[in-house]
Amino acid sequence: MATMTGSHEQRETHDLIGSDKVEGTNVYRSSGEKIGEIERIMLEKRSGKVAYAVMTFGGFLGIGEEYRALPWSVLRYNEDLDAYELNLTDEQLRGAPVSETGFYETGRIDRDWERRLHDYYRATPYW
Amino acid sequence: MATMTGSHEQRETHDLIGSDKVEGTNVYRSSGEKIGEIERIMLEKRSGKVAYAVMTFGGFLGIGEEYRALPWSVLRYNEDLDAYELNLTDEQLRGAPVSETGFYETGRIDRDWERRLHDYYRATPYW
Repeated sequence: MATMTGSHEQRETHDLIGSDKVEGTNVYRSSGEKIGEIERIMLEKRSGKVAYAVMTFGGFLGIGEEYRALPWSVLRYNEDLDAYELNLTDEQLRGAPVSETGFYETGRIDRDWERRLHDYYRATPYW
Repeated sequence: MATMTGSHEQRETHDLIGSDKVEGTNVYRSSGEKIGEIERIMLEKRSGKVAYAVMTFGGFLGIGEEYRALPWSVLRYNEDLDAYELNLTDEQLRGAPVSETGFYETGRIDRDWERRLHDYYRATPYW
């Protein structure tokens, strides 16, 4: 019994996660309402740090979808929802700073924009 | 002309990369011989740092494939090869420390194993 409990606890305290597990994970409000889903993670090549996650939201059947960057630290996984929990309105998401370079696949570090992004979400800068 | 050159240079100096671009990228020796491909990246949830990359190698048509963890810093992208360049023999790869917990999707941090892994590849620990 002790080992079963141990194994259960272990499942709840995973320290590592695979990138392909994060991609496609839903983002919900606490109410259970879906906001969007994680498309990919953007990594700083040199440091090997997550710069931000890219979430798609809005749209219907892939049409009219928007992309938004989210600081890694705002993504809190909620096991009951089986999703990342984020309590922001659509207006708040739309108001978040958009990168002028607009690179959501590969790109250059734009520290000024990243600073505004992390400020907006009151997230600690990763750099 | 200047802007075209600039845009070309920019392409070569991307600082960020999407996780889904890394997944599936081939790993070659300098000779052009394929070693394997990157399956996923393992991330530390709290710090948002890449712990290691998981490479599949060996096998044929998905049968008999093996998994090996590679420190992020050993993956050097070579544009001419359009692949990560890694000059290790199959024997060297097979001899690399295998995680006892064997978690290559999600798992706990095993610092002792990670230390041996980074020592093996003479890579600077990320933590």
